[in-house]
Amino acid sequence: MAITIYDQFIPVFSQMLSALDKVLTKAEADAAARKIDLDVFVNGRLAPDMLPLTRQIQIMTDQAKGGASRLAGKESPKFSDDEKTFADLHARIAKTLAHLKTFTASDFDGAETRDIELKFPNATFNFKGKDYLLNFVIPNFYFHYTTAYAILRHNGVPIGKGDFLGNK
Amino acid sequence: MAITIYDQFIPVFSQMLSALDKVLTKAEADAAARKIDLDVFVNGRLAPDMLPLTRQIQIMTDQAKGGASRLAGKESPKFSDDEKTFADLHARIAKTLAHLKTFTASDFDGAETRDIELKFPNATFNFKGKDYLLNFVIPNFYFHYTTAYAILRHNGVPIGKGDFLGNK
Repeated sequence: MAITIYDQFIPVFSQMLSALDKVLTKAEADAAARKIDLDVFVNGRLAPDMLPLTRQIQIMTDQAKGGASRLAGKESPKFSDDEKTFADLHARIAKTLAHLKTFTASDFDGAETRDIELKFPNATFNFKGKDYLLNFVIPNFYFHYTTAYAILRHNGVPIGKGDFLGNK
Repeated sequence: MAITIYDQFIPVFSQMLSALDKVLTKAEADAAARKIDLDVFVNGRLAPDMLPLTRQIQIMTDQAKGGASRLAGKESPKFSDDEKTFADLHARIAKTLAHLKTFTASDFDGAETRDIELKFPNATFNFKGKDYLLNFVIPNFYFHYTTAYAILRHNGVPIGKGDFLGNK
């Protein structure tokens, strides 16, 4: 029994996005209790030249949205990347989860060998689907999720590994 | 063409561990240039109640070592968890990479449905191999890798996403 491409990331990314949604809710409760303006968290960074919480969540959700679309050979929906509040971030997570729900296992038939081209301002990456998923989408998704989590944790939000994994 | 269990994590974890090894070398060069005691990095944390760099790397390598061993139904080698210096951390990464090299794709035949039991002081987790890999080993591996990277980045080490992914 092999693990399909679908199984390798759609259910687990959905679990992690739901977990992030709950982490944000805990951060809002914590900010209210400690009388911290939520903008402090929204704009929080781990270093002056690292991206703030909003961008971490935008890129994380882009990995899920774009990863699923590209591997399935479909057009990826455009998000406007203008989130400024926790409500905006919750809405972006919900949109991403709804997008992931539109896929079925058969959408990824042959995705392992699909040619994927990623264009950035300074570089173009060409992948086979398998390498795009394993060496780019999954590491980047967790990189930005962990960094978002760490920004909140660094700012004193009472969350732990169980929250990150979506076990509680 | 399916992606084997082996392909889903052994080559990419090896790439990430090699990338971490180079990140540590960059941190050593940066510490020398800025006249920072390397113990500051070794003991660096993102929050007072988060684990320091050494523990992040110990747990990350444990995910690779234990994940591969358990999924293959083999005994996992014990590491003594007494790393105190960058040399110790490089050696631990090398040991982990050497351990991953001992596996072949056929070691993971049937691993998707293998029963995996994880015992912790306060809880026991039971997984099927597939869920253990996708919902536990991979998220934990990247969680601790990203946190190790973020501790160094937070402390001013000049590294970027390309270093994290092992693209440079």
